[in-house]
Amino acid sequence: MDVELQLTVENLLARYVHALDDDRLEDWPGFFSDKGRYRITTAENYERGLPLSIIYADSRAMLADRVSALRHANIYEAQRYRHTVSSTLVERVDASTARATSNFQAVRIMHTGESMLFASGRYLDRIRLNPKAPCFEEKIVVIDSRSVDTLLAIPL
Amino acid sequence: MDVELQLTVENLLARYVHALDDDRLEDWPGFFSDKGRYRITTAENYERGLPLSIIYADSRAMLADRVSALRHANIYEAQRYRHTVSSTLVERVDASTARATSNFQAVRIMHTGESMLFASGRYLDRIRLNPKAPCFEEKIVVIDSRSVDTLLAIPL
Amino acid sequence: MDVELQLTVENLLARYVHALDDDRLEDWPGFFSDKGRYRITTAENYERGLPLSIIYADSRAMLADRVSALRHANIYEAQRYRHTVSSTLVERVDASTARATSNFQAVRIMHTGESMLFASGRYLDRIRLNPKAPCFEEKIVVIDSRSVDTLLAIPL
Repeated sequence: MDVELQLTVENLLARYVHALDDDRLEDWPGFFSDKGRYRITTAENYERGLPLSIIYADSRAMLADRVSALRHANIYEAQRYRHTVSSTLVERVDASTARATSNFQAVRIMHTGESMLFASGRYLDRIRLNPKAPCFEEKIVVIDSRSVDTLLAIPL
Repeated sequence: MDVELQLTVENLLARYVHALDDDRLEDWPGFFSDKGRYRITTAENYERGLPLSIIYADSRAMLADRVSALRHANIYEAQRYRHTVSSTLVERVDASTARATSNFQAVRIMHTGESMLFASGRYLDRIRLNPKAPCFEEKIVVIDSRSVDTLLAIPL
Repeated sequence: MDVELQLTVENLLARYVHALDDDRLEDWPGFFSDKGRYRITTAENYERGLPLSIIYADSRAMLADRVSALRHANIYEAQRYRHTVSSTLVERVDASTARATSNFQAVRIMHTGESMLFASGRYLDRIRLNPKAPCFEEKIVVIDSRSVDTLLAIPL
């Protein structure tokens, strides 16, 4: 049991979801390495090995572009998320890399006050263990349901 | 990464929600310091810096009074909560104090058997690190939605 | 605070729910000791000390039989679960045994894409701390609501 590694990864995940839930989207790309990959796909596509993605980006710059686009679309007042992350399993790959699998749920809170379970699934993460600031080299968000609103405004 | 501090705070939060979910409300004030503050407010009010609260108490005695009132109102058979707490970020303030931010969800289970997502939000805690029994100096419960049933019978 | 014990138990619980959520049901009996007991009951029955169970098994072999029966019933395509486990309190019983209490939620994802909060409750676990592979000597799943679909296809 690598206690330090486990809690380092859980801390990264916690900071990541708080940034999203607090609407600090401009901080979001900073959780990824320069060539970091971010992908949202469905469990169905993932299990079949299909390369289909709901969202795909393969650099921090692409993530930053996405944030700009979202800010222009100005949908932020309309909704917020609240994430739950649990059951994180961490495996060391080498001295500077780890893999992590977590369960997540996101509740969506509309401006009207309505709340609903919006999405559930897994985070499949490849993490670079920079001593000062660990970050995601890859984050695959595998959502359980096909019928998640495809207008995925805020990242998961 | 202060492993010991992180797990001490998570343990306090776990004991806190189990007391509520087990209907051990009489234990609830004991999680606070003598002059401990407890506040439930909405994200909207909190972000605007408005002092409005759904519930406010600034001593353990006030919390105990609230429990008495709730017991007299005798609504306990009618509902239970089940909390999920996750993504706890801990920051040490000084030798004897820490701050913690967590995400939470509460499911409400009615006596009829119905369950629903009742509330989601953040716990913003200021914790006194008594070696034997850490406790809350302040607990601000920031709920995401304005439309939470204002009959907040059981504390969150 | 026994850091190592806490994270060992959380890791066991995480591997357990990932096995269920990934539909690796054949791995499920392996999380129990040879004479391991598994029981699902309601909070109402549990608090009244009633021996009624929704599911009861008292050996790994019985759990394996259950998995076979479920595979034959062929309901796997129809649904998946996604678990959230949180607020795990661990208590050491003796050198080789611990008790743990956790909150859980399970979301059910139907093949149609629909998701719903399916069950919430507590895991009451007695864990054998085999250095190589800790396992459950007893796992009591106390669900909050009486009205959970009694067709509990997949274990919780």
